[in-house]
Amino acid sequence: MKAGIIGATGYGGLELLRFLHNHKEVEEIGLFTSSEVGTQFSDKFPHLTDIYDQPLLKLEDDALAEYDVVFASTPSGVSSTIFPSLVERGPKLIDLSGDFRLKNLASYETWYKKTPAPQEIVERSVYGLTEWNERAIEKADLIANPGCYPTAVLLSILPLIKNRLIDPSFLVIDAKSGISGAGNKPSQATHFSEANESFSIYKINEHQHIPEIEQAISMFTDIETTITFNTHLVPMIRGILATSYAQVTDGVTQKQLVDCLSETYKNHPFVRVIQEASAVGTNRVKGSNYCDIYVKLDERTNRATIIGVIDNLVKGAAGQAIQNMNVQFGLPQQTGLQLVPYFI
Amino acid sequence: MKAGIIGATGYGGLELLRFLHNHKEVEEIGLFTSSEVGTQFSDKFPHLTDIYDQPLLKLEDDALAEYDVVFASTPSGVSSTIFPSLVERGPKLIDLSGDFRLKNLASYETWYKKTPAPQEIVERSVYGLTEWNERAIEKADLIANPGCYPTAVLLSILPLIKNRLIDPSFLVIDAKSGISGAGNKPSQATHFSEANESFSIYKINEHQHIPEIEQAISMFTDIETTITFNTHLVPMIRGILATSYAQVTDGVTQKQLVDCLSETYKNHPFVRVIQEASAVGTNRVKGSNYCDIYVKLDERTNRATIIGVIDNLVKGAAGQAIQNMNVQFGLPQQTGLQLVPYFI
Amino acid sequence: MKAGIIGATGYGGLELLRFLHNHKEVEEIGLFTSSEVGTQFSDKFPHLTDIYDQPLLKLEDDALAEYDVVFASTPSGVSSTIFPSLVERGPKLIDLSGDFRLKNLASYETWYKKTPAPQEIVERSVYGLTEWNERAIEKADLIANPGCYPTAVLLSILPLIKNRLIDPSFLVIDAKSGISGAGNKPSQATHFSEANESFSIYKINEHQHIPEIEQAISMFTDIETTITFNTHLVPMIRGILATSYAQVTDGVTQKQLVDCLSETYKNHPFVRVIQEASAVGTNRVKGSNYCDIYVKLDERTNRATIIGVIDNLVKGAAGQAIQNMNVQFGLPQQTGLQLVPYFI
Amino acid sequence: MKAGIIGATGYGGLELLRFLHNHKEVEEIGLFTSSEVGTQFSDKFPHLTDIYDQPLLKLEDDALAEYDVVFASTPSGVSSTIFPSLVERGPKLIDLSGDFRLKNLASYETWYKKTPAPQEIVERSVYGLTEWNERAIEKADLIANPGCYPTAVLLSILPLIKNRLIDPSFLVIDAKSGISGAGNKPSQATHFSEANESFSIYKINEHQHIPEIEQAISMFTDIETTITFNTHLVPMIRGILATSYAQVTDGVTQKQLVDCLSETYKNHPFVRVIQEASAVGTNRVKGSNYCDIYVKLDERTNRATIIGVIDNLVKGAAGQAIQNMNVQFGLPQQTGLQLVPYFI
Repeated sequence: MKAGIIGATGYGGLELLRFLHNHKEVEEIGLFTSSEVGTQFSDKFPHLTDIYDQPLLKLEDDALAEYDVVFASTPSGVSSTIFPSLVERGPKLIDLSGDFRLKNLASYETWYKKTPAPQEIVERSVYGLTEWNERAIEKADLIANPGCYPTAVLLSILPLIKNRLIDPSFLVIDAKSGISGAGNKPSQATHFSEANESFSIYKINEHQHIPEIEQAISMFTDIETTITFNTHLVPMIRGILATSYAQVTDGVTQKQLVDCLSETYKNHPFVRVIQEASAVGTNRVKGSNYCDIYVKLDERTNRATIIGVIDNLVKGAAGQAIQNMNVQFGLPQQTGLQLVPYFI
Repeated sequence: MKAGIIGATGYGGLELLRFLHNHKEVEEIGLFTSSEVGTQFSDKFPHLTDIYDQPLLKLEDDALAEYDVVFASTPSGVSSTIFPSLVERGPKLIDLSGDFRLKNLASYETWYKKTPAPQEIVERSVYGLTEWNERAIEKADLIANPGCYPTAVLLSILPLIKNRLIDPSFLVIDAKSGISGAGNKPSQATHFSEANESFSIYKINEHQHIPEIEQAISMFTDIETTITFNTHLVPMIRGILATSYAQVTDGVTQKQLVDCLSETYKNHPFVRVIQEASAVGTNRVKGSNYCDIYVKLDERTNRATIIGVIDNLVKGAAGQAIQNMNVQFGLPQQTGLQLVPYFI
Repeated sequence: MKAGIIGATGYGGLELLRFLHNHKEVEEIGLFTSSEVGTQFSDKFPHLTDIYDQPLLKLEDDALAEYDVVFASTPSGVSSTIFPSLVERGPKLIDLSGDFRLKNLASYETWYKKTPAPQEIVERSVYGLTEWNERAIEKADLIANPGCYPTAVLLSILPLIKNRLIDPSFLVIDAKSGISGAGNKPSQATHFSEANESFSIYKINEHQHIPEIEQAISMFTDIETTITFNTHLVPMIRGILATSYAQVTDGVTQKQLVDCLSETYKNHPFVRVIQEASAVGTNRVKGSNYCDIYVKLDERTNRATIIGVIDNLVKGAAGQAIQNMNVQFGLPQQTGLQLVPYFI
Repeated sequence: MKAGIIGATGYGGLELLRFLHNHKEVEEIGLFTSSEVGTQFSDKFPHLTDIYDQPLLKLEDDALAEYDVVFASTPSGVSSTIFPSLVERGPKLIDLSGDFRLKNLASYETWYKKTPAPQEIVERSVYGLTEWNERAIEKADLIANPGCYPTAVLLSILPLIKNRLIDPSFLVIDAKSGISGAGNKPSQATHFSEANESFSIYKINEHQHIPEIEQAISMFTDIETTITFNTHLVPMIRGILATSYAQVTDGVTQKQLVDCLSETYKNHPFVRVIQEASAVGTNRVKGSNYCDIYVKLDERTNRATIIGVIDNLVKGAAGQAIQNMNVQFGLPQQTGLQLVPYFI
């Protein structure tokens, strides 16, 4: 297989390369860019010396069409202009940005404040939450890879909503992310001396992942709801932990909650249902494609605390994208993704 | 004034010393301990060389009784055995632990899993949330200094509950703290290689600050409620940011919420109502006695996000204790506490 | 006293403000800038809300001339154009940049790659290494405040060189700094995700502090030498630790080395000679004006390891500048500088 | 192949597991321990859930003898008591501790302050600096895997000493390590609140890697020398950067220095000679088996700065151990070790 990457110089792109290097079916990787054509990739990223000593290629349809699969790991508003002309030319397309996720174009415009992709292409795209959409992903030629926050949130709450164990009408989701989620572009907010040793909140009630989560809840559980969702910045590089809160349906027990999660994911290699609260932390998944989930009923309030933990760059981006590629190409989901979490 | 400190070797004790060093009314400080009597303090804490070159003193009632004020910065279950015999011997007493906070002794036993202090002493103690209890603090001889989390939470939500702007019946509080909150005793959870670059949750639904927050809501607003409250560990030394969520009373506007906070604290030097979300972060208060608060109405859901930010060791412990001491002794609240936040 | 600050928006400027706020002789502070005139300072730096709610002032000679002391905390190449016209107009001038440090203008051009300040002004300036130049500083109207690295290095090695206890002919200085030393301007090298969890070297053999250290050794010990000096970036905000290596003069003992340091600094409040190696670390001085120094003879090799530790923003910049101001105005050196090290 | 690990619960052991999981020739891994026999490994390390769900085994010779290779990743003083009785029973033995490194037993006692291993076993052991001792490693049945610091130092300086390009008589080595090098046992020095945001020095002139480096210089270059070597603690988890300083032989140029390094390692896949100083940093090798080396001549002083950079847990421990195993078993050195550096 030949894989092309648009936006290889971003953190999502670097993670794709980290995993694809050990993917036994991928023999060739093309690195495409709009601005630094010809630059040797390992000159720009010296940690890849002797690994990816190859030039950045010019972004052209004809060149991209030669690949079996093309990943776009670009800021929002970019792949919507590139993928439409590629969609019937051969490569399977996997978009890591938000450009094809929202089926409602007006919603895209509202939350992203950008021009949406063409309606027919958006309709054709398949939402790549692997564990919940595998059948559709197998046949998809364009995948909208989920956002990092939605992945952590949805994997942990969908089973409980779908099985009517929690009340989705007052769903509070308090999410926290490492700073790599902000990408590789320096800014005051990500300047070491100001970001380190500080914890902050951002995009209060305004994060573009809100409509994505609401849409996915509707898509996979047939329940329409309006969520409260906030995001915080943690002084660490990688990791997302999302804590969700909801009232539990009368009479539901802790055991039922846990069993529901375990049953849902029993055949899914990358979701682990955690038994001990002390094992819930981002270092347990760091560098890997795992999503750890945990639920705890508070009998005092009859509310549940539901937690999803991922590495934002892996299961929240590049890892899930490769997982989806594997599904598209009929490979075992784990192919190339069996890296052990770092922990330390 | 002469100030005695029991538990000076803990982080709360060190912070008391950091501020008292520049407190113009405090002329002498006694450092009391149960275990390392005679050790020169700056030998144990070399950063205090030339500043606190004095021996640790033996913990004895007669010695303590000589002081004008005695702070206890000890683990729970300690000051409950020391303060009862001191309470009528002269010194104003300020307890930084949880031993005198909960008026309901059974609740103390349930949440702290320790033997409570004697009933009559607990009744005599005054809850030291300075901005809300100043009149009682002025006359108190024993102050129960609030917990770190309750301080951040209560200062931000009490005005809105008291003025019936939010519905306290479904109050979700998601709190995050730097690791200094775990104290100075090494453990696997605070071991650098496992704590750094990781974000985790702990004491799910079981934190002993839950009954303290519920009691204070009742005490200051006459509303009984049962909260959902969780705590997370952030890979940084100092800082607490608590994010609370509640439904807003019908018709209440963003302006009303902000005005309520501003009005409540207009004469309180250590609470700042923040206007810009981008200014909400723990580095804005680091090292200082400020509590920054912020509120944002989500018109889509009619729910409010309410945030309190403090330095857990200062406004959440030593700073508020000194603020209370100032009130007890009729000094301006800011005396000794006018250190500028570090920021970097 | 009225103090003016040029470049208040940089980290050096912020530290000046942090200390001057509690300086009992300074009644008014003017914040001068070349670009954001009129902006309320606490809007730009919200952590200073209620503390420095005042507008940035336009940089003009006539305005600056009204102040008793003017600090310039600006990038190199700036104060050399501002201070010459101010030098006889009244204010004591203290420059925190490198513009007036090197007496040899050609050397300035070589190492700084900028146009030097006028010869006569450079000659008039006094090098502000307080502990070594107090008599000259008392009479100075223009002070060249030392660089951060030179401060840590010189305070630790000068006594040993001056007393001929070490051989300066092969002096290797390996210095390490927190990232705040790079200033407040975002860049790839200071981008959190790339700077955190990494340790790197920079400006190998090319740091502009090399000629400053060599000049000061000559100035204070009459020995000309050529040093080896390298600088590394530590993933932390504040702190410098400089490790120097030199052959010890035949027969010199560990006791002689320590006694030399102790004797030199016995009357200097901000230099502490550390006895225990375990006490040598940047958190021991964090946030304070202390310089901790330590020396250890290796009898196996007859070489000494000599260490200087400072907070780069305090003793390495703003703190020493205020210390010099105190000397110029006949105040006790400690005025306004008695903040206790943070430690945690 | 079957691989046994003694000390799997330490950080070195965890790293062995991280790499062996993807080693295509290793089919079975046994985890041996002296204290927690029967505990499910993934209960103790939940990040390994679904990966290493197997019990810890009792440390017994007969059980260990069944394995093709046995790694000991234990504190010093342990493998010296375990390996002697195993050495002729079949398994290839690889020791990651210092127990078999020093050929001079008296030196071991002096520096390690422990009882040395039996003389005949120490003599039989082969020093596992792969790039310099491959022929001996191929035939070894007991490998003394190098220390973390010696690996970074030796790979960078040996070529220059061997080729007489630098003068080894005054060799100053200033090394810095992430905190994982201190192992997994909590202590005050590794307690997050005291270790984070601080840079410190430790074991001044007393590190047990000093005799190891001196012995290796003698072994591989036939030059006896006495080095100056110090170690510092960096507030990050992984990584070592060692900066060495030496006078350059008269007339030697920058090009000669670089060519010497490049020539030495041209056929060695895990040593990279770095051309740009800006590429020298521990994040360039993080999580991988690479050693990056760099040299820079200072023409002003005719001294060279020589740098070695590794991940202390990989090339400095587990990675090099597996590299040695591969050599012993006639496998390509890279087998199982081709993980891409993390960078972020």
